[in-house]
Amino acid sequence: MLLEKINEPNDIKKLNADELPLLAKEIRTFLLKKLSVTGGHVASNLGDVELTIALHRVLTFPEDRLVWDVGHQSYTHKILTGRRDEFDSLRQRGGLSGFSNPDESDCDAFISGHSSTSIAVALGLAEARELIGGSENIVAVIGDGALTGGLAYEALNNASRLKSNLTIILNDNHMSISENVGGMSTHLSALRTSSGYKGFKNDVEEGLRKVPGGEQMIRRIRRTKNGIKQLLIPGMIFENMGIMYLGPVDGHNIPAMVRVIRQALNVKGPVLIHVVTKKGKGYLPAEKNPALFHGIGPFELSTGKPLDRSEAPAYTDIFSKTIVREAIKDQRIVAITAAMGLGTGLRRFRKYFPKRYFDVGIAEGFGTTFAAALAAGGMLPVFAVYSSFLQRGYDELVHDVAIGGYHCVFAVDRAGIVGKDGITHQGIFDLTYLTMIPGFTVMAPKDGRELEAMIEFAIEKMDSPVAIRYPRGEAADLSDAGLFGESESIECGRAEVIEKSDGDRVLLFAIGSMVETAVKAAQILKESEISASVVNARFAAPLDQDFLIYETAGYDLIVSMEENVRSGGFGEHVLSVLADSGYRGDFLNVSIPDQFVPHGSCDELKAELGLDAVSVASSVIKRLEMAKINGGLS
Amino acid sequence: MLLEKINEPNDIKKLNADELPLLAKEIRTFLLKKLSVTGGHVASNLGDVELTIALHRVLTFPEDRLVWDVGHQSYTHKILTGRRDEFDSLRQRGGLSGFSNPDESDCDAFISGHSSTSIAVALGLAEARELIGGSENIVAVIGDGALTGGLAYEALNNASRLKSNLTIILNDNHMSISENVGGMSTHLSALRTSSGYKGFKNDVEEGLRKVPGGEQMIRRIRRTKNGIKQLLIPGMIFENMGIMYLGPVDGHNIPAMVRVIRQALNVKGPVLIHVVTKKGKGYLPAEKNPALFHGIGPFELSTGKPLDRSEAPAYTDIFSKTIVREAIKDQRIVAITAAMGLGTGLRRFRKYFPKRYFDVGIAEGFGTTFAAALAAGGMLPVFAVYSSFLQRGYDELVHDVAIGGYHCVFAVDRAGIVGKDGITHQGIFDLTYLTMIPGFTVMAPKDGRELEAMIEFAIEKMDSPVAIRYPRGEAADLSDAGLFGESESIECGRAEVIEKSDGDRVLLFAIGSMVETAVKAAQILKESEISASVVNARFAAPLDQDFLIYETAGYDLIVSMEENVRSGGFGEHVLSVLADSGYRGDFLNVSIPDQFVPHGSCDELKAELGLDAVSVASSVIKRLEMAKINGGLS
Repeated sequence: MLLEKINEPNDIKKLNADELPLLAKEIRTFLLKKLSVTGGHVASNLGDVELTIALHRVLTFPEDRLVWDVGHQSYTHKILTGRRDEFDSLRQRGGLSGFSNPDESDCDAFISGHSSTSIAVALGLAEARELIGGSENIVAVIGDGALTGGLAYEALNNASRLKSNLTIILNDNHMSISENVGGMSTHLSALRTSSGYKGFKNDVEEGLRKVPGGEQMIRRIRRTKNGIKQLLIPGMIFENMGIMYLGPVDGHNIPAMVRVIRQALNVKGPVLIHVVTKKGKGYLPAEKNPALFHGIGPFELSTGKPLDRSEAPAYTDIFSKTIVREAIKDQRIVAITAAMGLGTGLRRFRKYFPKRYFDVGIAEGFGTTFAAALAAGGMLPVFAVYSSFLQRGYDELVHDVAIGGYHCVFAVDRAGIVGKDGITHQGIFDLTYLTMIPGFTVMAPKDGRELEAMIEFAIEKMDSPVAIRYPRGEAADLSDAGLFGESESIECGRAEVIEKSDGDRVLLFAIGSMVETAVKAAQILKESEISASVVNARFAAPLDQDFLIYETAGYDLIVSMEENVRSGGFGEHVLSVLADSGYRGDFLNVSIPDQFVPHGSCDELKAELGLDAVSVASSVIKRLEMAKINGGLS
Repeated sequence: MLLEKINEPNDIKKLNADELPLLAKEIRTFLLKKLSVTGGHVASNLGDVELTIALHRVLTFPEDRLVWDVGHQSYTHKILTGRRDEFDSLRQRGGLSGFSNPDESDCDAFISGHSSTSIAVALGLAEARELIGGSENIVAVIGDGALTGGLAYEALNNASRLKSNLTIILNDNHMSISENVGGMSTHLSALRTSSGYKGFKNDVEEGLRKVPGGEQMIRRIRRTKNGIKQLLIPGMIFENMGIMYLGPVDGHNIPAMVRVIRQALNVKGPVLIHVVTKKGKGYLPAEKNPALFHGIGPFELSTGKPLDRSEAPAYTDIFSKTIVREAIKDQRIVAITAAMGLGTGLRRFRKYFPKRYFDVGIAEGFGTTFAAALAAGGMLPVFAVYSSFLQRGYDELVHDVAIGGYHCVFAVDRAGIVGKDGITHQGIFDLTYLTMIPGFTVMAPKDGRELEAMIEFAIEKMDSPVAIRYPRGEAADLSDAGLFGESESIECGRAEVIEKSDGDRVLLFAIGSMVETAVKAAQILKESEISASVVNARFAAPLDQDFLIYETAGYDLIVSMEENVRSGGFGEHVLSVLADSGYRGDFLNVSIPDQFVPHGSCDELKAELGLDAVSVASSVIKRLEMAKINGGLS
């Protein structure tokens, strides 16, 4: 096994060049064996094995700085920098991260979980090097999908101006997570495919025909191979921006890449190398369905079939079906995704309403402004987007959606703890960044049935900006919970009482996923003879002021419960209303402490953060005892 | 006066074409007369008079949709759509907005105050039109400065894919607010200037010389005017993205523009018209110093000299001087601005340290990630940026700066009520969106001296992400306030006691600009024989927990005071700590209700929002009386 010789950074340089294809094969086998057990990002990592090998043959670690865009494509880099043995713990609590992280290895130049950051990061490192007087090489690897994000363009624009040495590898696999979109993509496609190239050449020739003597010029051009063709065709977008373009080069040909990377490192100023790779390379199921194998759980190696598929519907599925049903009823409904058609469940919508479906690329800022404008034009846009990615559209939510008060619906998926994707993907800020925006209605369902009802409500009853946040994974089912078996219908800003008896001392006022936790915590408390009411807040904004002001007087302790950071979240707003109402009882805020949350299973992480039912019940008991000691309670 | 004939939308179509240059002249005279009294955006509005006239000759209002990027360039549009008589009230409370706003006129297609939104908005309107089956024209006007923003690129990318009819006017004045930067700018410059064009042509020719027969081709190219030149040179970036390019056209030549706009409206798919204008056109002081005349207060018409220049230093000046002083001491300091060198005071820094100064264009997202990476590379970046614009970098603050914990300093200018720029520019969210980010230290100074101390502290004593937010305009001077004449030195997370006596019933716990208000409110309260302590919080994150837990027991009423929305702001955090500490007294949250704040003078707006000293004192008195009625207080 060649792989066994690779135990430290730069060990790969000890291999002979002709051993590298075999190494690539071993790495693929290793990755598939490990990932079929742990799950992870399969397609992108199978695609860049040779590219990573070529980079490691040329660069020296940790001195040189290699910046991976959305670091989930850096598994081979992890293997080549001494982390091979940790792959059994991939994406598990305390184990190897699924993304780049300098805390894990000094060979990881920067945090990267969100898209389109790599050129900006590499440029910052390059300018620091220029000022300090260093000589390290700085290389960014960015996918063509990530190039649809405005941040990448802003960085290219600045790289061109600053002119520092910087190598940008465009890892072009003709897709982001779903298919790639837009003008830049078309341009790359023209560079990549011969038919595109031919089409462009035809245009050029047609233009020349209109010129006196053009025919003769065309004949000359056809005879030349590298002169005018090189000048006219490849990478003009980049060249026009002042960035030298090299390529395209076959991303599975190691010697070709080593040559061009060496060449690029010797060039003054920013250079872009266009590398063409195939997602899922070497594993047929992933080559055939790279979107499924983007991020996947454990799967059967021989067939590629996902294991352990749950029977319960996921929140995403419920959204997916409900939005199609609504779109049948209401022609105004259009759906937007930022390169997450599969992940958000909007693929189904696209099937039925292709003209009303917009995949805008990895461009959440644009998606948000676009939604507002579609609404201004008379449509009813539904933007389905992950909580942590919508952070990219924060200003656009404020400026374009909320000031105009447009009726846009944001289906905020992956809200709360997301688990294995970890620190960069936790959706733990949206209750703060959405509720702070004036005029935004922010809801979270207690279970799957309520998600459906909330989508209907948001579309049919509202006329202003709405967000519904719901967690990753299986939908809860609380239809049997508590005294009120029949769910109350949704009214704007009204909470729903789940369990309530006269004489309850404790009120659990919970939102979203925490309602289920509250029901369980109330059961645990009952065993300690503490009777607790459970109320489903439903709305984080506007809060149910009537309930909080008029129906809380009898409680000794009110507990707010949310899967969001404490700072500026649901609980602080609840407390704020209670304080105004003159409530003088005790208050307990159950939420995520103001910290980033690492990767691990959702259950583990929630228990650690004190968000599971046992922790909540125990916090309640502690607080009641403390209050007794302080003499504040009867 | 031709202008008197223009009283309603489309009135301009009744004029003869040869009257239009005179109309342009009259509009300039009108604008200068009005703006010299009210202040406003002078340079951009003098630059696009002819362009706006040409657009209004071709388009029909309000049916056609004209989307202005950063709507401060739409004064002529306002004049031509029946709002001429309202110019005396420009940017004043209840008066004409300085930006586009559909609430003001149905001829304003969309809210626009932040940069780079127009193509995204126009595209949303265009897609809605396609789905509904309308036939209106949709035109976006975007400056070359705004084209440095990633949102514009994301929109171009999608416009290219969607192929709907859409006209983009690139109003190219070779600068945003300051000089324009980046590769796109260089490309435009090559299109615009003959020397640039010649340079490019030389490159082409050089390339051709290497081709067999190239010399002959060069001779042919030189003879042709529109064939190969048209094909090779203009707008290649746009053409490569699939967007038809027309131009460049002289932006002060009305007939030429009318022709090309008509032509563009007849084209299928997205078209970009490259219009070259001069900022400040027709008024020498503005032509000479367009940055000064970007947004300006009242000025002397004959000389262009600003009137009423205050003697007191502005917060911006204090920042400007302090950061230069710090940069002399610490070589690691680099400064970043997003096209706001003048506005943020970083021009001075650039003068002394040109290599350590980065103007990244209107690209706050990039600026933020770039700062993080510079820090990762060993520098100490200071990003000076307006509060409402930093919203564009929210995800980058979370993902790139805070997760890595990099020591970057954000000098958040124009925080709080900014006054005349109004609804899109109020900096009233940053205390929420910054304090919610784990590990971010967030400060606000009570006066100018403290801003200086905080900058020193943030640079010299901190080693993690820091933001200092300070208001627009004159710096307060509280050096004589209260018992503690000598300011206490700054410690992380420690508040400063300004006034405190035994027996004080009320605690005013204020941050930033509200400390001065608190001092004044305490004086007013004294007249009603209510003694109030005043404490300067200094830190919104981390809060002074020791103070709030151990030194608040004796108060009947604690008042939090901030110039930020209530939701998730300073006050909610303070209440949260108090509730944990077992405080059972009354609490009053003085902050901006969760609403958008329109334009007007800062004093007016603060009084309306209950943020001035008289309002605060009166709220305190009311609350104390209410508590007495409820029997809660002695």
